[in-house]
Amino acid sequence: MIEELPAVRRTAALLVAHLQERLCAGVVGVERAIAERSADRAAADFCVDAWASEGTHGVRGTGSTRVLADGAAFEKGGVNTSVVTGTKLPPSVVAQRPELAEHGFFAAGVSVVLHPRNPHAPTAHCNYRYFEAQAPDGSRSAWWFGGGSDLTPYYPNLEDVRHFHGTLRAACDRHDPAFYPAFKAWCDRYFYLKHRGEARGVGGIFYDYLDAAGFGESDGRTAFERPKSFAEILAFMSDAGGAFVDAYLPLVERHALDPFGERERSFQLMRRGRYVEFNLIYDRGTHFGLQSGGRTESILMSLPPLVRWAYNEQPEPGSPEAQLAAFLRPHDWLGGEPLER
Amino acid sequence: MIEELPAVRRTAALLVAHLQERLCAGVVGVERAIAERSADRAAADFCVDAWASEGTHGVRGTGSTRVLADGAAFEKGGVNTSVVTGTKLPPSVVAQRPELAEHGFFAAGVSVVLHPRNPHAPTAHCNYRYFEAQAPDGSRSAWWFGGGSDLTPYYPNLEDVRHFHGTLRAACDRHDPAFYPAFKAWCDRYFYLKHRGEARGVGGIFYDYLDAAGFGESDGRTAFERPKSFAEILAFMSDAGGAFVDAYLPLVERHALDPFGERERSFQLMRRGRYVEFNLIYDRGTHFGLQSGGRTESILMSLPPLVRWAYNEQPEPGSPEAQLAAFLRPHDWLGGEPLER
Repeated sequence: MIEELPAVRRTAALLVAHLQERLCAGVVGVERAIAERSADRAAADFCVDAWASEGTHGVRGTGSTRVLADGAAFEKGGVNTSVVTGTKLPPSVVAQRPELAEHGFFAAGVSVVLHPRNPHAPTAHCNYRYFEAQAPDGSRSAWWFGGGSDLTPYYPNLEDVRHFHGTLRAACDRHDPAFYPAFKAWCDRYFYLKHRGEARGVGGIFYDYLDAAGFGESDGRTAFERPKSFAEILAFMSDAGGAFVDAYLPLVERHALDPFGERERSFQLMRRGRYVEFNLIYDRGTHFGLQSGGRTESILMSLPPLVRWAYNEQPEPGSPEAQLAAFLRPHDWLGGEPLER
Repeated sequence: MIEELPAVRRTAALLVAHLQERLCAGVVGVERAIAERSADRAAADFCVDAWASEGTHGVRGTGSTRVLADGAAFEKGGVNTSVVTGTKLPPSVVAQRPELAEHGFFAAGVSVVLHPRNPHAPTAHCNYRYFEAQAPDGSRSAWWFGGGSDLTPYYPNLEDVRHFHGTLRAACDRHDPAFYPAFKAWCDRYFYLKHRGEARGVGGIFYDYLDAAGFGESDGRTAFERPKSFAEILAFMSDAGGAFVDAYLPLVERHALDPFGERERSFQLMRRGRYVEFNLIYDRGTHFGLQSGGRTESILMSLPPLVRWAYNEQPEPGSPEAQLAAFLRPHDWLGGEPLER
């Protein structure tokens, strides 16, 4: 399939496939390391579902859903790719780019959600994607990249968050010093549960409509001083995707065998409910996927394995659980100081 | 608060408060009956949270959230009322009634979701509400009722479903023979998970914009042969609400102590995921509540206590779990035969 694509699309599809390989290898590496250090847990491996779909709403394509369950470190994780074409850009895109109404599209993306077993290990998500709009005459009318990585801890741990943000910032800084501050702020705005007045986690980076001229949505675009080439942006995407592996997996390795009890487990299950609320109520990727006739089981692999909702549960004042609320308020995690690595 | 309302609004608020009382008494009755028959389970009672809110988006009012958890029969249940006014009807209503754009509103409703512990006892939901639009000069510009009850079994049981539908149909038939067939079909259309091609459950009744002239949305209204009075519709509302108690609670009493094991529990938790998906992705009441600055914890009391998502889990062919899919396809449950009661 990838071999049949025109050169640029093939490059994007290969980027996505490569990120999937790298991520899955990293996750399996953590699984093995934790299984070795643990008396009673076996390493899990990914189950691979390759799919091809005529879809509905004019969307068709192929994908690879890789899901891991009941592992030594991860309770559930998914690392999915999809490479699809559609006859019509979705309304959410046209709202940003009205000149592309009725244009077709090509999209290649990798989407990752990892739910560790241990409540002291944070959940994390990343998504990196390439979009191309196609004019009615078949020519490419626009292209852009989008992506991001964010971290959702259950217990406050400043060192973890500084490592996560620091690693992402270093990858961003290698390409453009404007990236990290802009993408960090965008991430804080995006992963927000309005109905609770709560951030989903401690953020990370988030960006969209990144093209040769700049990035951002129509109401707040940032223009580059000099245009970037496709290759320059591709190199950034590859670095940002790779940085997720280095930013996140060491945190799971660090905490996968931390001691915990019923109290921590119960809090983790309750907080996972917030993750479900965000993904089903707000997440644009989830809505786009479900509305465009995407593969439901691949899209909803992001949902946690076990979740709890209780009415108006409030953590005991002063407890670590109670401290999470303040911790999740947007912070300048790296404090402007030189990056410690 | 209720005492200060104009007569018609007070009547609606009293209806809602009365349904809450009746439902809670019924639920507590089941709790006690099951606790008495059980060796190791205690009856739970409702915790009552009365709230008053300035809200946001111009919505303010009072409500009573009654939640029961970890009972003998029910794992979680909520029976909530709210009586609110707003400065502007929500877009979803204006889409149906464009002449009411920019009109204020009054709404009184009761909303119920009950999640039994035993997988052989179905989950059920009901909602009964009164809406009034208010013209800029303060006069009442329109009024209508809406409501419905639906049943979500985990295991197919035809007798249960016939009892549920039969009881609701009997209540409907006492008021208008057109009600049950129309409201049953509407319920099947509404409680549908498009992204899975699955009904949420076996339906029940669902209706909206029921006023003196008829019922239905703007693209398919049914007109009454002769107009009904406010009192006639109020009587129907009261009967329909009461019928939920008789339609549903006996099913829980019947199955609360059925034997079950890990397999049934696991299937129940997975199916509860579908309930979460419906409520967070599609349910208009949930979206209206969250968007209008409603009380999040009261709105999301509908979510099940414990939920499970696994990737692409398929029940074993021929198993009772596998039979559920066919059972959930819309059926003429009462088969046109005389109602057995």
